[in-house]
Amino acid sequence: MAKGIIFIADGMAGRPLAELGGATTIEAAETPNMDLIAEQGECGILDPIAPGVRPGSDTAHLALFGYDPYQYYTGRGPFEAIGAGLEVKGGDVALRMNFATIDDKGVVIDRRAGRIQEDEGTDELASLLNGLEIDGVKILCKASTAHRGAVILRGEDLSGEIEDADPHREGSPIPKARPLTEEAERTAGLVDKLIERAKELFGDHPINKKRQKEGKPTANCILLRGAGIAPRVQPFSERYGIKGSAVVEVGLIRGIARFLGLALIDVPTATGGYDTDEKALARAVLTALKKYDLVFTNIKAPDLGGHDGDAIKKISAIEKADRMLGIIYEGIKESDTHIAVLADHSTPVAFRDHTGDSVPIAVWGKMTRPDGVTGFGERPCSGGGLGRIRGMDLMPIMLNLMGASEKFGA
Amino acid sequence: MAKGIIFIADGMAGRPLAELGGATTIEAAETPNMDLIAEQGECGILDPIAPGVRPGSDTAHLALFGYDPYQYYTGRGPFEAIGAGLEVKGGDVALRMNFATIDDKGVVIDRRAGRIQEDEGTDELASLLNGLEIDGVKILCKASTAHRGAVILRGEDLSGEIEDADPHREGSPIPKARPLTEEAERTAGLVDKLIERAKELFGDHPINKKRQKEGKPTANCILLRGAGIAPRVQPFSERYGIKGSAVVEVGLIRGIARFLGLALIDVPTATGGYDTDEKALARAVLTALKKYDLVFTNIKAPDLGGHDGDAIKKISAIEKADRMLGIIYEGIKESDTHIAVLADHSTPVAFRDHTGDSVPIAVWGKMTRPDGVTGFGERPCSGGGLGRIRGMDLMPIMLNLMGASEKFGA
Repeated sequence: MAKGIIFIADGMAGRPLAELGGATTIEAAETPNMDLIAEQGECGILDPIAPGVRPGSDTAHLALFGYDPYQYYTGRGPFEAIGAGLEVKGGDVALRMNFATIDDKGVVIDRRAGRIQEDEGTDELASLLNGLEIDGVKILCKASTAHRGAVILRGEDLSGEIEDADPHREGSPIPKARPLTEEAERTAGLVDKLIERAKELFGDHPINKKRQKEGKPTANCILLRGAGIAPRVQPFSERYGIKGSAVVEVGLIRGIARFLGLALIDVPTATGGYDTDEKALARAVLTALKKYDLVFTNIKAPDLGGHDGDAIKKISAIEKADRMLGIIYEGIKESDTHIAVLADHSTPVAFRDHTGDSVPIAVWGKMTRPDGVTGFGERPCSGGGLGRIRGMDLMPIMLNLMGASEKFGA
Repeated sequence: MAKGIIFIADGMAGRPLAELGGATTIEAAETPNMDLIAEQGECGILDPIAPGVRPGSDTAHLALFGYDPYQYYTGRGPFEAIGAGLEVKGGDVALRMNFATIDDKGVVIDRRAGRIQEDEGTDELASLLNGLEIDGVKILCKASTAHRGAVILRGEDLSGEIEDADPHREGSPIPKARPLTEEAERTAGLVDKLIERAKELFGDHPINKKRQKEGKPTANCILLRGAGIAPRVQPFSERYGIKGSAVVEVGLIRGIARFLGLALIDVPTATGGYDTDEKALARAVLTALKKYDLVFTNIKAPDLGGHDGDAIKKISAIEKADRMLGIIYEGIKESDTHIAVLADHSTPVAFRDHTGDSVPIAVWGKMTRPDGVTGFGERPCSGGGLGRIRGMDLMPIMLNLMGASEKFGA
């Protein structure tokens, strides 16, 4: 069987910018390697979810891995937990957590505990809840960025059908977690008990005593919201009959890859920032390709340029992604490997967030049908032989080219 | 109402071949008539099922007839029976059958009865089971190619939810047909009884006495597998309000057309091989068009070239299909008829089997929007006005052009 690579330059796609003479940042960037893939391969445009739908990183990646986000995306809780690095299992109930501040009457006076930061002890506070058992249900807890974190309830007879134990504004006490169904009563009770335990464990903790001294709002309780049941998924290798691995920088996408059962490859010098080590990422992809059938890789920097609204930084990040692609191409050009180059969504500089625009895609390898497109970009690729496809089409297309598909029928 | 023709050159689509200077076999073939249809009509690419999905002939044709294969393809058994020429009805339980050899202890020693051939009496053996009645359930049985055949159980309270009565390896006895649900217990028992009857009827049969003398494994029993319930379908004429007929060579596709209620037109000189009589096929299409609103036709030869891995034979077969199209075109060019020209799937010469690649399509007739595409082929058509469509879209598109569609809404 042939091998495959899915190469994602995160958020690379965008919209025309007047400051670039009407070019998009991809079109303005020098991308000789993406252009080569486009010229020698087959091009098209891809809607990560569906035309016009604005994808999150989570839903876009679920779709690109071939797991329908409308079926498998069960809410922010499970995916916050996955992104925080918790080992989420199908059937877990997961919630988003805020460290917060309550006064001595239990009224929430700061929903973000003074925007407490990772280096101010959030890991340690989370670890006090992690591993608890309440009424036979196991609690897992992890801090993520700033005042955020995630909680998992693992056990029997749990439900995600509960309302938030979060007043969503300051000046109110924490509401009980209201069950939306009869089956959810037990889970709602567990959430309330967990919040009580957090109050007991956090109240006099040295981290909070220090904050008090410094005049900062203490992290003396938690708010829990966005409950959902983690989806039960068929592992990637079972679903497709191939071995997959992921060379990915961002926690959320790493988490999704691990949750689907792909092997994670660590690249210590990959920072997930503008300064990431694209050469090390490329080398890790080539190494992984020796052992795995399909390697999925995502370089984050182009998306940062979009979120930062900085065309120059975004162009530079796209050029960095292109250099990464060049090293990968050199490593596979004589082999029986197919590679798809695309973005997971658009992050236009002028919008500074994900949009529902389509993204360009080029697929290169021996089994493709080169189509006369001569450069990579939103407009050039739209005239290519792949036409307009969707994120969910990517895995079937790759498996077909790799000769790894089962026939449907006879 | 206008008339319509769906013209399938079976498996015609493919991938670029180095030996053809990077052309596909369609692109390398001389196809003046397909090119004319493309130039004067509207072009696109079509995924028989969905992008990347490898279709069987059965699932592809279900989709092209507008019957969603994910709903109507209920397994190999019913479609083997349909292909064998049994008159399958919705609700029948159908199974694939092997003639096999057991020793005197009942152990399977050859799952294919020495690969017994059609001219060695398989029809006669099958006819011994055909028409039997067991516990009020009617048995239909027919041999197909070599050691294969199909069985139908027709009656009340039957289920397709049974495991195979086939050890799937030699050296083991035939297992009982294990029911997967309580409702399937009766069906499983019937399958076991049918196998016992086959043993009784085949054991001392002259065909087997002859095989014994010749030192060949006898066809002294049957194995049954791939059970499924034939789908209940709304007949073609009822579904679309038009009269359809089929000029088709291959048993499986003839069977599907008949199962859906299209009128089958026989063409005695159509062999289904490279040597088929394309002129007679074309004339049959034109004759059928006088009586029917839509004529569906399939010429098999191009697919054989793909399965045989022979580019020269495939090109020659595509040119034969093109000559057939030329005769049809001459017959309809002054009339109010629309014709769609396409493949049912790709069968690339280098892959020698169906792939999940898209296929080119051109639709010609007064109501189309010619789009500037000047030749027929995978790449040229991908730039056409139809864009990228799916097999399930074909019937609605044809009905619309023919003025035969109901309005959805007011």
